[in-house]
Amino acid sequence: MADACIFCRIVAGEIPADVVHRDADVVAFRDLAPKAEVHVLVVPRRHVADVVGLATDEALLAAVVRTGASLAASLADGQFRLVFNTGAAAGQTVFHAHGHVLAGAGASAVGF
Amino acid sequence: MADACIFCRIVAGEIPADVVHRDADVVAFRDLAPKAEVHVLVVPRRHVADVVGLATDEALLAAVVRTGASLAASLADGQFRLVFNTGAAAGQTVFHAHGHVLAGAGASAVGF
Repeated sequence: MADACIFCRIVAGEIPADVVHRDADVVAFRDLAPKAEVHVLVVPRRHVADVVGLATDEALLAAVVRTGASLAASLADGQFRLVFNTGAAAGQTVFHAHGHVLAGAGASAVGF
Repeated sequence: MADACIFCRIVAGEIPADVVHRDADVVAFRDLAPKAEVHVLVVPRRHVADVVGLATDEALLAAVVRTGASLAASLADGQFRLVFNTGAAAGQTVFHAHGHVLAGAGASAVGF
């Protein structure tokens, strides 16, 4: 764990969050500033800085994707946008890898 | 290959695209309607409908991520947003898995 990392502290239960899923690999909780009806962050328990680091553990990367899909199905209609930001200029604000899962109303408000 | 799939046809070279990378696993080309200075689609050669299908092949999923990171470094400053849309309501328009890689100016125009 990186002691100063806010997501490591959420994973450890030291900081409260609106957790919607926990398993041995990942923790998922609602974003504090949701950009869609459902906006959840899926976070690997293990500290890696970003999705590039996450991709060095292929099974863990896949677990993040599968968890996002599962939460989109349980919390909305199963359709979802999955976003990983890498670097401050690309919008990353917490340097512990996380996938944004956007589902329900507003999920595709921005066209890509 | 799914014969009617436009991305399978781009992978096969049957439809032109502004290709920026090809290897044994993936093909990457510029989006026709870029949403940032750099906007590239990274597409697995093998037809899978979406990122959920892609996640069943963990190595291929990781290859898509690594290729996105590599292109963000060669075409911009290495910082990037990676977006996967799953389902029409989430903005997916081509049902062959692809990661949108947004880098350079405009990559974080939308906050997440």
